[in-house]
Amino acid sequence: MRIFIAGIDGYLGWPLAMHLALHGHEVHGIDNMSRRSLVKEVGSHSAIPIKELHSRVAIFKRETGMEIHAGYGDLRSHDSLLYYFKSFPPDAIVHLGEMPSAPYSMIDEKRCRETHDNNVGGTLSILWAIREVCPDAHLLKLGTMGEYGVPGVSIPEGDFEMQHRGRTARMQFPRQPGSFYHCTKVHDTCNVEFCCRIWGLRATDIMQGVVYGTRISTSYQDHAELATRFDFDSIFGTVINRFCAQAVAGVPITPYGKGGQHRGFLPLKDSIQCLTLALVNPPEPGQYRVFNQMEDTYNILDLAEMVKEAGETLGLRPTIQLVENPRIEAEDHYYDVDHQKLLDLGYVPTSDMRREISEMLTDLLPWKERILKMSRSIAPVVTWSGR
Amino acid sequence: MRIFIAGIDGYLGWPLAMHLALHGHEVHGIDNMSRRSLVKEVGSHSAIPIKELHSRVAIFKRETGMEIHAGYGDLRSHDSLLYYFKSFPPDAIVHLGEMPSAPYSMIDEKRCRETHDNNVGGTLSILWAIREVCPDAHLLKLGTMGEYGVPGVSIPEGDFEMQHRGRTARMQFPRQPGSFYHCTKVHDTCNVEFCCRIWGLRATDIMQGVVYGTRISTSYQDHAELATRFDFDSIFGTVINRFCAQAVAGVPITPYGKGGQHRGFLPLKDSIQCLTLALVNPPEPGQYRVFNQMEDTYNILDLAEMVKEAGETLGLRPTIQLVENPRIEAEDHYYDVDHQKLLDLGYVPTSDMRREISEMLTDLLPWKERILKMSRSIAPVVTWSGR
Repeated sequence: MRIFIAGIDGYLGWPLAMHLALHGHEVHGIDNMSRRSLVKEVGSHSAIPIKELHSRVAIFKRETGMEIHAGYGDLRSHDSLLYYFKSFPPDAIVHLGEMPSAPYSMIDEKRCRETHDNNVGGTLSILWAIREVCPDAHLLKLGTMGEYGVPGVSIPEGDFEMQHRGRTARMQFPRQPGSFYHCTKVHDTCNVEFCCRIWGLRATDIMQGVVYGTRISTSYQDHAELATRFDFDSIFGTVINRFCAQAVAGVPITPYGKGGQHRGFLPLKDSIQCLTLALVNPPEPGQYRVFNQMEDTYNILDLAEMVKEAGETLGLRPTIQLVENPRIEAEDHYYDVDHQKLLDLGYVPTSDMRREISEMLTDLLPWKERILKMSRSIAPVVTWSGR
Repeated sequence: MRIFIAGIDGYLGWPLAMHLALHGHEVHGIDNMSRRSLVKEVGSHSAIPIKELHSRVAIFKRETGMEIHAGYGDLRSHDSLLYYFKSFPPDAIVHLGEMPSAPYSMIDEKRCRETHDNNVGGTLSILWAIREVCPDAHLLKLGTMGEYGVPGVSIPEGDFEMQHRGRTARMQFPRQPGSFYHCTKVHDTCNVEFCCRIWGLRATDIMQGVVYGTRISTSYQDHAELATRFDFDSIFGTVINRFCAQAVAGVPITPYGKGGQHRGFLPLKDSIQCLTLALVNPPEPGQYRVFNQMEDTYNILDLAEMVKEAGETLGLRPTIQLVENPRIEAEDHYYDVDHQKLLDLGYVPTSDMRREISEMLTDLLPWKERILKMSRSIAPVVTWSGR
């Protein structure tokens, strides 16, 4: 299959590119490198050092003999995107090219609108390019479980049968996003569903749980030079990764508020596995398909405890310290999420969270000094209330 | 009340500004004049000639002695908006400053993204400015009934009690927009609701039916120089207005497809009445309130017949000619919409559609030649399928 990856330099994009190339696919991709510059802007860096994209591509070729066609590009340059698609018409487009940070989108008007323009504008550019160049291609897009929020009722996978005053309709389940970033993902969902309904495009929209981890299960991972980035700052670091970085650096693990928030999680290697499953099992033309992608749901305080215990086993002395919640969110709530469709396609979850966390801590230990150097970036600075 | 109107030069904005000024409010406003230039761009003009904004303001002052503070401005210039709000902190902001055209948003990627940036970006700029300068101000925003689409079940006013697998939640009713323009309105709904929920802002979101008509009921309407614009082209003209222009010009009235589409409608004077009612009855802090604003629902073919009959009474010879539907939409469907909340606030609907149409035809007759001159702009050129 010929696959185009938007955001190929990212935490998911780079390992997915290698994984797909190693499985015989022709991989092309672009990245606008905004993650690299923004993490610098917020005063941090990847815990695990990473090479420039062009170097990783060259090293991957040297090690495996395989080509990944990747370079700088911004999705919003629509003419460039048309050029890429016309030069190498893709069978599938994996869209990982979005600004992924809730706190970043809440900083100020400029960052909020930048997140909107990058995410919603980039997706629109892709949709129009697919329609013009390759209307039969499969768009595999990354949404987030956070689109649903915590509604207090069970969450289906995308749509549901609505009973309303004696009549019935199949509708998208109402979304209740918790940040402007999450709002942009809801807007994308709306736009992608519209294009499937009106233009007959085919798309899989992944409502992804929080991803954590350092490894994927392929042989190249011995090569440190091919590692994927690992963010731990309060803006771009996701929760388990941040906790592990704190445990390694010897600073307190800091759940927000009471820590009673429930979320869906999955390890990086499962995310790659699931995205690949979606690619090799495309939807029908005109179909807009939603997968809730996670291994299981966990409570934040329980996760902090797991990181603490795993750290102790490795001889660390992690502590846990609840901090004031910078977000406005429920800290104790009902949470029940359907996540069956990927299992039906053959997804085998990595269900040993403790082992995963141990593995991460082991991979991070050599970089303790790098984390410590930027450890001030872990404390939350962006508050939802603005106060 | 001190009221800021975004889009003060528009079809609704200008009459609302005059109406509010005449009722003792201090009216400020901006407009980026995009409607004037875009209507030119699509090869048309207002059927009723209109003066430049600054001239209308001056004539209004001469005729009434009252000041309307209006000038050029773009909502997306956030610093300018902050400056306006800080100079004259508004009690209410009426947001009519959006690109209102479904066909325009479907032309190409550029117009689609421009619609997104203007609408979603402009609303975000307002939301952040309210939060910074006047968090207690009431945002009165124009959505559209088209956000809901035609779901096949009854449509509530915004939110509804969802029963789902034995649990209950109050949720926004799922939206099913029918064009990228309608998508942008759904995105706005999501963003405004978010800001009320998280920041405690107060907002009224008007899901407005299709507005038609030439007049509002205040004494100044004898002054032709104070008229509001009237678009009849296929891009910016709404359906009854377009039919009336066709009847006056002596070209066929052209419903799209089978003409069985049902929509909610209301005359311009009712829109002004309802917006004023919402302003003088603001929501509570933190409340996100949705009003479905319409007089009643009608079938498109019935409306064409009404225009034909009203035209015949005035000595015209209108004909009806179904044309291929440029949109992809249901042409025969269930449609039932709650619209009670404005009635509860005292809205008295103008329920004689026939009289309204007669009045419009009478107002348009002097401009027959102006319409004829641009009558080629009435035929639909933008198709949803792109073919």
